[in-house]
Amino acid sequence: MRLEHTHLTERFGAVRIHELQRVIELDSGGSGEHHPTGHGRTSEIVPADAIRAIERELVVVIPCKNETRRVIEGVLSGIPHDCLIVLVSNSARTPVDRYEIEAQTVAEYCRLAERPALTIHQRDPGLAAALKVAGVPDVIDEDGLVRNGKGEGMLVGIALAALTKRRYVGFVDADNYVPGSVNEYCKAFAAGLHLADSPYAMVRISWHSKPKLQEGRLFFSRRGRASQVTNHFLNQLIAEYSGFGTEVIATGNAGEHAMTIDLARRMRIAGGFAVEPYQYVDLFEQFGGVMDSNHPDVMAGSVGIRQIETRNPHFHDDKGENHVNDMRLQALNVLYHSEVCLPAVRDAIREFLTAQGALEPGAEPPRERVYPPVGALALDQLLDVLASEARTFRQIDRRLPEGVRTDPPIQRTTIA
Amino acid sequence: MRLEHTHLTERFGAVRIHELQRVIELDSGGSGEHHPTGHGRTSEIVPADAIRAIERELVVVIPCKNETRRVIEGVLSGIPHDCLIVLVSNSARTPVDRYEIEAQTVAEYCRLAERPALTIHQRDPGLAAALKVAGVPDVIDEDGLVRNGKGEGMLVGIALAALTKRRYVGFVDADNYVPGSVNEYCKAFAAGLHLADSPYAMVRISWHSKPKLQEGRLFFSRRGRASQVTNHFLNQLIAEYSGFGTEVIATGNAGEHAMTIDLARRMRIAGGFAVEPYQYVDLFEQFGGVMDSNHPDVMAGSVGIRQIETRNPHFHDDKGENHVNDMRLQALNVLYHSEVCLPAVRDAIREFLTAQGALEPGAEPPRERVYPPVGALALDQLLDVLASEARTFRQIDRRLPEGVRTDPPIQRTTIA
Repeated sequence: MRLEHTHLTERFGAVRIHELQRVIELDSGGSGEHHPTGHGRTSEIVPADAIRAIERELVVVIPCKNETRRVIEGVLSGIPHDCLIVLVSNSARTPVDRYEIEAQTVAEYCRLAERPALTIHQRDPGLAAALKVAGVPDVIDEDGLVRNGKGEGMLVGIALAALTKRRYVGFVDADNYVPGSVNEYCKAFAAGLHLADSPYAMVRISWHSKPKLQEGRLFFSRRGRASQVTNHFLNQLIAEYSGFGTEVIATGNAGEHAMTIDLARRMRIAGGFAVEPYQYVDLFEQFGGVMDSNHPDVMAGSVGIRQIETRNPHFHDDKGENHVNDMRLQALNVLYHSEVCLPAVRDAIREFLTAQGALEPGAEPPRERVYPPVGALALDQLLDVLASEARTFRQIDRRLPEGVRTDPPIQRTTIA
Repeated sequence: MRLEHTHLTERFGAVRIHELQRVIELDSGGSGEHHPTGHGRTSEIVPADAIRAIERELVVVIPCKNETRRVIEGVLSGIPHDCLIVLVSNSARTPVDRYEIEAQTVAEYCRLAERPALTIHQRDPGLAAALKVAGVPDVIDEDGLVRNGKGEGMLVGIALAALTKRRYVGFVDADNYVPGSVNEYCKAFAAGLHLADSPYAMVRISWHSKPKLQEGRLFFSRRGRASQVTNHFLNQLIAEYSGFGTEVIATGNAGEHAMTIDLARRMRIAGGFAVEPYQYVDLFEQFGGVMDSNHPDVMAGSVGIRQIETRNPHFHDDKGENHVNDMRLQALNVLYHSEVCLPAVRDAIREFLTAQGALEPGAEPPRERVYPPVGALALDQLLDVLASEARTFRQIDRRLPEGVRTDPPIQRTTIA
């Protein structure tokens, strides 16, 4: 993969945010004639071998809610073979058990592609029991099940990724009509993680464009409606600290992002649609130098955030205005209540929400739930309960053609 | 790339047509753990190294007519680095010179991506002069220029590809909104050409689906309107010879296809939109065993046609009903007038066209133009005139970062 060479970074304490970096070539060619990344060049090449090396250590989590088989199969086909697929579903189980259809789709696809995978349903009582034992009782709702919400599903995905002992975890939304774009997301994850110069690194994807049906034709809009607002206020926060206006953050709501497990284990996780913007907020809180950090090891180095703009447009199902509003509000709620948020930004958020009719004049935005980092959980106990009680938890091992079965992705014996 | 394993082939003399083969994984993983393609498996893996080896020898021709910069740049970004880009444009040159914009887009992109390319305008008087000298006076119209038409543009592309001395040539349409799908086409070309067991091989792409705007939402239709008709009659022709009904041909109109140069040099080329379906007709005529062949060397072996169904949908601009009708008619015209076409198929075509209102009752479909194979042209003379007279002919050489210029894609001295 060939990426535009960028220079600008913004710092927020130990957090380094690279400006948006475009993909120039999806495939930058064989290593036969490649020359190492040089200075003074306009582009950076990440050779295929380097990308592969990351992919072998990369878990790709697909949060899924009521997508069709065809769409899911397309997404799977775009994920490079060496990555481990983890499907975390919150699909309806009645009247038709859509999770069973999804789990079968994954199992059949993986048999064909001779690769392993994990699947689980977010509302499996056994999963709730496992998370409770592991130390996240807050994630359980009145029904005794893991709360509905994207962030809650991602927490499950990170916990499973940590159990696999792989070194990286990435997220790809299931509602995507273009397998080639999924492939590009994964390649961009790998390229960005390869370029990271810290064990605490994150890659966030900005779509090239998002086509919409408009008056009977396709219009390629450059930025999502929710993203514009989220990015604006995150940038304002950075600017208030630095005294210099900035537009560095272009990926506040990035559903597609990846991290080192070392970083993912240390990050708190917000519930619902607050999850992605809260990643910025949490990094600022934990490693921004404004508040005390529990991780002097991280503070001594840095946390690198790379933002990559894809070549592919993002074709997905339009979830409608309500969905966008939910995303926008939840993003601003977490920023508003953050201890690093400055009064000027708080006022601006309140003003914006009031003008939008989303907040009564004088009222405060609601708080969103925030869960502890996965590194704080008792993962060995989580796995014990998962294995014995979670009936939707499936480990698909890679079956070799001769019928030889390989080890499952998560092995009990490897848990220290 | 991992492909479905298929078994069925149809023969038409020396022509072997493989049934449609689906892509299972865009990226089948690193070679570290790969095992060679075995028997009794449901899938075939083409390792990345094998794909690269073909890409280094592959010329990708982009026939282009009035596409926007953004769309062209997206298509370029999807073509693997090691392939050589050739843009053959028939865009408007007044009031704005769209070719200049396109040629600049290619040049700028190639500078950024440090790769070579060729561009030319189909209606360049110097090109017409070159083709006349080379032995294709029929391709020139009343204005003394190369005729408008897709087939005519592809003839130019094949001639340029032959001049580069690379071993393969493929075609990718310029009107494509998804760079990732272009990437998949090229990978599928390479995978199919790698799997070929004859020096005379062709790969034809069938899109997974073609999304259309329908009542305000996207509907993913499986087969194009023109393709259905073309495939139907091509299959009927095969069935009439064999006595067994067949649906083997799924790629009669495939705009995306690739060939060995050895095969491309021997194939006659139809004008306009007849070009792609005529490839089947020409192979049946030259190598079908019904008529005498000028190529006993090919007859002694075989011509392999592989058909690959992509994972990506094909998002492009809807060119409207007239375009589809043009394609459909021209395809049937060449089949109708072929010497291998049997009376039953002729009758069926005439009946169909009459029922469609495209033909007067009792009338005969018009003939399409057919040009001689590129191998019959005087390519050295063609290059001489191109170099001296074709002002739109641009060779973009790969500039290395230190300012070192490499040889242009076509070198005069290498012409024997």
